[in-house]
Amino acid sequence: MTIIVINPNSNEAVTQGLRDALTPFPNVDCITLKEGPFGIESQRDSDSVILPMLDLIQTHPDASAFVIACYSDPGIDTAKSVCSVPVFGMQEAAVTTAMCRADMFGIIAIGEGSIRRHRKYMRRMGVLDRLAGERALNMSVDETARGANTYKRLTEVGAQLIEDGAQCLILGCAGMAKHRSPLEADLGVPVIDPTQAAVAMALGTVLASSF
Amino acid sequence: MTIIVINPNSNEAVTQGLRDALTPFPNVDCITLKEGPFGIESQRDSDSVILPMLDLIQTHPDASAFVIACYSDPGIDTAKSVCSVPVFGMQEAAVTTAMCRADMFGIIAIGEGSIRRHRKYMRRMGVLDRLAGERALNMSVDETARGANTYKRLTEVGAQLIEDGAQCLILGCAGMAKHRSPLEADLGVPVIDPTQAAVAMALGTVLASSF
Amino acid sequence: MTIIVINPNSNEAVTQGLRDALTPFPNVDCITLKEGPFGIESQRDSDSVILPMLDLIQTHPDASAFVIACYSDPGIDTAKSVCSVPVFGMQEAAVTTAMCRADMFGIIAIGEGSIRRHRKYMRRMGVLDRLAGERALNMSVDETARGANTYKRLTEVGAQLIEDGAQCLILGCAGMAKHRSPLEADLGVPVIDPTQAAVAMALGTVLASSF
Amino acid sequence: MTIIVINPNSNEAVTQGLRDALTPFPNVDCITLKEGPFGIESQRDSDSVILPMLDLIQTHPDASAFVIACYSDPGIDTAKSVCSVPVFGMQEAAVTTAMCRADMFGIIAIGEGSIRRHRKYMRRMGVLDRLAGERALNMSVDETARGANTYKRLTEVGAQLIEDGAQCLILGCAGMAKHRSPLEADLGVPVIDPTQAAVAMALGTVLASSF
Amino acid sequence: MTIIVINPNSNEAVTQGLRDALTPFPNVDCITLKEGPFGIESQRDSDSVILPMLDLIQTHPDASAFVIACYSDPGIDTAKSVCSVPVFGMQEAAVTTAMCRADMFGIIAIGEGSIRRHRKYMRRMGVLDRLAGERALNMSVDETARGANTYKRLTEVGAQLIEDGAQCLILGCAGMAKHRSPLEADLGVPVIDPTQAAVAMALGTVLASSF
Amino acid sequence: MTIIVINPNSNEAVTQGLRDALTPFPNVDCITLKEGPFGIESQRDSDSVILPMLDLIQTHPDASAFVIACYSDPGIDTAKSVCSVPVFGMQEAAVTTAMCRADMFGIIAIGEGSIRRHRKYMRRMGVLDRLAGERALNMSVDETARGANTYKRLTEVGAQLIEDGAQCLILGCAGMAKHRSPLEADLGVPVIDPTQAAVAMALGTVLASSF
Repeated sequence: MTIIVINPNSNEAVTQGLRDALTPFPNVDCITLKEGPFGIESQRDSDSVILPMLDLIQTHPDASAFVIACYSDPGIDTAKSVCSVPVFGMQEAAVTTAMCRADMFGIIAIGEGSIRRHRKYMRRMGVLDRLAGERALNMSVDETARGANTYKRLTEVGAQLIEDGAQCLILGCAGMAKHRSPLEADLGVPVIDPTQAAVAMALGTVLASSF
Repeated sequence: MTIIVINPNSNEAVTQGLRDALTPFPNVDCITLKEGPFGIESQRDSDSVILPMLDLIQTHPDASAFVIACYSDPGIDTAKSVCSVPVFGMQEAAVTTAMCRADMFGIIAIGEGSIRRHRKYMRRMGVLDRLAGERALNMSVDETARGANTYKRLTEVGAQLIEDGAQCLILGCAGMAKHRSPLEADLGVPVIDPTQAAVAMALGTVLASSF
Repeated sequence: MTIIVINPNSNEAVTQGLRDALTPFPNVDCITLKEGPFGIESQRDSDSVILPMLDLIQTHPDASAFVIACYSDPGIDTAKSVCSVPVFGMQEAAVTTAMCRADMFGIIAIGEGSIRRHRKYMRRMGVLDRLAGERALNMSVDETARGANTYKRLTEVGAQLIEDGAQCLILGCAGMAKHRSPLEADLGVPVIDPTQAAVAMALGTVLASSF
Repeated sequence: MTIIVINPNSNEAVTQGLRDALTPFPNVDCITLKEGPFGIESQRDSDSVILPMLDLIQTHPDASAFVIACYSDPGIDTAKSVCSVPVFGMQEAAVTTAMCRADMFGIIAIGEGSIRRHRKYMRRMGVLDRLAGERALNMSVDETARGANTYKRLTEVGAQLIEDGAQCLILGCAGMAKHRSPLEADLGVPVIDPTQAAVAMALGTVLASSF
Repeated sequence: MTIIVINPNSNEAVTQGLRDALTPFPNVDCITLKEGPFGIESQRDSDSVILPMLDLIQTHPDASAFVIACYSDPGIDTAKSVCSVPVFGMQEAAVTTAMCRADMFGIIAIGEGSIRRHRKYMRRMGVLDRLAGERALNMSVDETARGANTYKRLTEVGAQLIEDGAQCLILGCAGMAKHRSPLEADLGVPVIDPTQAAVAMALGTVLASSF
Repeated sequence: MTIIVINPNSNEAVTQGLRDALTPFPNVDCITLKEGPFGIESQRDSDSVILPMLDLIQTHPDASAFVIACYSDPGIDTAKSVCSVPVFGMQEAAVTTAMCRADMFGIIAIGEGSIRRHRKYMRRMGVLDRLAGERALNMSVDETARGANTYKRLTEVGAQLIEDGAQCLILGCAGMAKHRSPLEADLGVPVIDPTQAAVAMALGTVLASSF
């Protein structure tokens, strides 16, 4: 029984970050899509990983479930259409989990550009009536990964979203899991890491199948 | 670390069924609300359990999370408002999990009466655009628990819902978990047991907190 | 032919205020739920009145209609499910009446806390597309009842809501009826007292039944 | 204090029917728009009454409120924009009143043609999520007025709508008020006459103004 | 093959502006509704043109399509119901065209008053989830026609709408077509002139019919 | 000034069909994506054309607009994000054009499988409230291209959709344009060919740019 978590970019450091964030979750294997771009920053980047990711999926015929570990859920429709086991996207899992924690949720995005893509995706999900707002850190992925300022920006942007009406926050990016617990404590509302949310759902389907 | 699953009716057999369905899930403790009615069959029954359930919750100060194991999510708002740890409702968890498995979901209810209550609740959740339909077994809770016919009706009603456009099914009641796996195999679409869905989410929050 | 207006809190002064506001309406009897809390300020308070209110309802078998006179419409579903005569909630009646007076309506709430509960309730009603905004006086119920500042805050908050796009205002609380007329005159938009709106609907069903 | 109910067609028999249905309501004056067509059966008919109706409104400067007594609410926007007193439309009032009586409502229309117009109007109102269905008697206005078959068709169509999920019914036409009470008794769900619903709201605003 | 573009106000200068804006489009004939008001500025003005416009339409039995060249789409329902050839409204065409250019669109209105009417109309269209915002120039039609300030205000208001999330802009009024191209260049997002959008659709139906 | 219409499958016969259907439209150049699959029948097929289509687009730097001539609008987001000229998708254009022709539209799909993909796409567009229904011919693309039965099935399915409430029909596939005119005449409602709808919009932007 293995849950395969695919990092669709080729940055091994991101994969290692996923591994760390998922330490408490059993039976998880995090792998890197070597053919992916170093970071997924545009619609083109997102679409470019679909076919190689399908190939990667097919090299794991024994997997019990897959998680696509990029917040834009690249290739989610195609992956679901070709897999016989469950496939979870981070954005789908985070948003729906947030809907169980509070009535209105907010999202902390890395950059402005992704907010528009997320909105379109959430409209397709039919969940926009539950969105209090999405606001950007306006930092590069790189900065957020290393920067000392990241946590400070997270608390600022999170506080603004709470002002907007958010009663629960989503970290709109893989790789910020280490900030989840302190942010939840400091802001006083539930904070959701999307990778953990997706793996929890995957784990649920896998455990349910053993009953 | 304990996830308390509360059966808000006083029927111990139902609690035992929950225990069975949750065998694969770690750290779960299923308890019975002794003050609850023998079955929750009306809006009045549903509202009558709220205050005693709050009292029961307060006798478990060390719980890591609570799951209310009745598909009408009785007292969910109040429980969330007074608990410092996460509280999950079965309907909320099942519907949102279904939204991650397929675009359109269907629900198999026990009786016609509950369909209207569920619809109102799902409109409040803002998820009706994803509902393909909800259809009733039209059996009593008792019949479903014992009856040889239950599985036959589940396949019939499930097949109708697939005809209605459902690509994923929810068992709209606690206590049908043992039919989940065979139904999924026979109908060829994901089938979700709401108790397992809620406990998976609870487990996710608990595991995430240990990172 | 009697319309029973139930004040679900135990504050007799509030009941007297309802009586005053309803002076122009015929056949109205305002009663107090003695078992209710002194004020309904939380979800728990709201849920706590349901069962005693049902008992109170059953002591009035000759009533032609009931009105639950608390803006959070506590117990509305259960009351409707057990009564053979019409039951009206203040929030339901005020919001729907507002939808007949203007395209976009605004709500003046007492405190921030209730805004979230109202939003959830209005989403369940399916009417959020007509809501221009809800803003709080941020005064205690007590202050609003006595305070000289109440009218001043009402005009300030009402003006902000008009800026938000509201073309009609709802007083989101029982007990502010005396400010309705002056506020309407000063702000130049229709202002709705929810108790009066609910009693008007109740009166309509009662009169219609006599044809 | 007078509520002016305008029949926008020139058929005096219809006006007399309104008068009868409104007997229990105080302070009502039903008048006929002599310039209107004999019946409003098309979009053109509906638009043709707007300007003469505005003229008629202006000959009643002392009215406390107006009700436009045609289910397509002809000229409602313009009438509201030029009147200093409240103006109610039958469709608006009936639909919103139905939303206070039950979660899902159904409408009995005279003919198929009007169903499309109503749908567009209800989408504008933002209330389609509450509509269980609308079905037509498929009789002419004339037939419904005289025909012995009318009540039989009303019960048939009403029963179909209940099957569709309606928990409350609207008579989608002025002039069927006399069937309201028996239909409610026979079908076991609330039945709303739109003229009475609109006049009840008008009466509510008028009574509220006297406090 | 002729597309008749009707200016429903009686201002010939406006008709000439339409002619200019439509120079690149083949087979277009712009005509003036002599019975119309000099400008359409209220709901009453809008409703007043319906019947004379229907008469004007009937004097063009050979037209291949009609375009109603006023952004409030006066009489659109009636015109469609009586014409055997396609009828296009400017607002309908502009909004739907905008939905093909970007996910979220914004509208530049002439005055505050029209924003409310537009909102109601777009809710009826079912497209409000795509609206980033509508903001007014707050100039008279006259000023916009002559004023040197018009372009400056257009860029200011357009920039605010982009801040609101608009990725595409609609000029919410006939007669600003000459500003379309420069505004698109200066603001960096698609800008849509509603007359051109409606005529493009009309041309499409006419060309399609010749295949 | 050239509008490039891209057939994203490699079937030259389909491209020739597009050329025929677009004969009446000026300045159109239809080209084939040689790297595409012979037919686009799955989500994987649809995603597989994105990158080669971007390459093809970049070989036409002088194009005034692009149309992606496959009803599932493959790669539309990416194409829009990298092109400086307008890009139109057939589904987007057909649906929005239908919304200008009638209140409720219906879609004739080739096969059941695509209906689910279209629904998800239309939910993302935010237009599902205008959809009367989508029904499938249940023929292969090949059969529809040659078969004598195609027109018969189109009239049958179209008539069912009209029964469902459709007042306008969309041919949910490239390559059925030759049936548009006769179907419109036989069924009595507007029928829209999506290629023509998209090219009409493209032509509109191109002509507008020359003013």
